[in-house]
Amino acid sequence: MDENILGIVAGVLTSISMIPQLVKVIREKNVEDISLLMLLVLISGLSLWVWYGFAKDELPIILSNAFAVLVNVSLLVCYMMYNKKK
Amino acid sequence: MDENILGIVAGVLTSISMIPQLVKVIREKNVEDISLLMLLVLISGLSLWVWYGFAKDELPIILSNAFAVLVNVSLLVCYMMYNKKK
Repeated sequence: MDENILGIVAGVLTSISMIPQLVKVIREKNVEDISLLMLLVLISGLSLWVWYGFAKDELPIILSNAFAVLVNVSLLVCYMMYNKKK
Repeated sequence: MDENILGIVAGVLTSISMIPQLVKVIREKNVEDISLLMLLVLISGLSLWVWYGFAKDELPIILSNAFAVLVNVSLLVCYMMYNKKK
């Protein structure tokens, strides 16, 4: 299989996989099981993957990780809006 | 920065980011906010990324995604063990 097609399919799947989580959090306004530490480390790592994608000039890596940054920054915003210590 | 070091740092960060989620789920035995659909699509996508890594011969991509597959398969096992419809 062509590597770019493979990368695009992989990127679409890992991107799609984040949507239900975001939708669920937005709908239920429940962030109890979201780890803030995880989100912050993840956003840092994903941003480095975008950089790696540019360094290697690989569009599938750039696009899918840029999308992942977007989704996880949205989760972070939700976390800050909905997190209430009980 | 050397691309491989960049990729390794990115991979370590995105890998680390998954651990708190797994630890939290194992400790609290609570998978309410985990989406099964997300997990299945994610594991498929990550597996394709491993394949992509082999096709492109890029070790950081192979290692970090193989680790992610491992973590998410563990989450899937937790989901099946702890999920009880209420």
